[in-house]
Amino acid sequence: MDWEIIGYGAATLTMFGFVPQLVKMVQTKSVDDVSLFMMVQLGLGVFLWMVYGLHLQNSPLIVANFVSLTTLTLGLVVYFKYTTRRYFR
Amino acid sequence: MDWEIIGYGAATLTMFGFVPQLVKMVQTKSVDDVSLFMMVQLGLGVFLWMVYGLHLQNSPLIVANFVSLTTLTLGLVVYFKYTTRRYFR
Repeated sequence: MDWEIIGYGAATLTMFGFVPQLVKMVQTKSVDDVSLFMMVQLGLGVFLWMVYGLHLQNSPLIVANFVSLTTLTLGLVVYFKYTTRRYFR
Repeated sequence: MDWEIIGYGAATLTMFGFVPQLVKMVQTKSVDDVSLFMMVQLGLGVFLWMVYGLHLQNSPLIVANFVSLTTLTLGLVVYFKYTTRRYFR
């Protein structure tokens, strides 16, 4: 078995992992059950991975985490556009 | 600057990245805005990362993705316990 395929499959699924949530928020305009803290924590995490990738000059690390950071940032925009809550968690 | 700290910070934030969503679902018992596809896609992704880590015999890859897989699996259990929807996305 070509193990590289497993690695690329894993990378593809996780780097685009937030996309279904983003699509659902846009389509339903209903976001109150989504955790703001999850988006902020994951966003900060992938940002640090990207910075670490820049330090290592490792392209896959930079590209994958830039993609995730973009989807999570869009998620924050959509969340604040549609949320009806005043208290966040 | 000790760049290892950036890497460990990134790893910690992302491996526990789903925890705030899990806590919110348990506390509010309201899960219908959460994307089932996101949990399944991320779950499959981190499972493949873990398998890839087992192949490489890379402990950080195995441990981090086992933790994420556990939180996402718990997320699926909590989702199906509380969802009121028949059609999933």
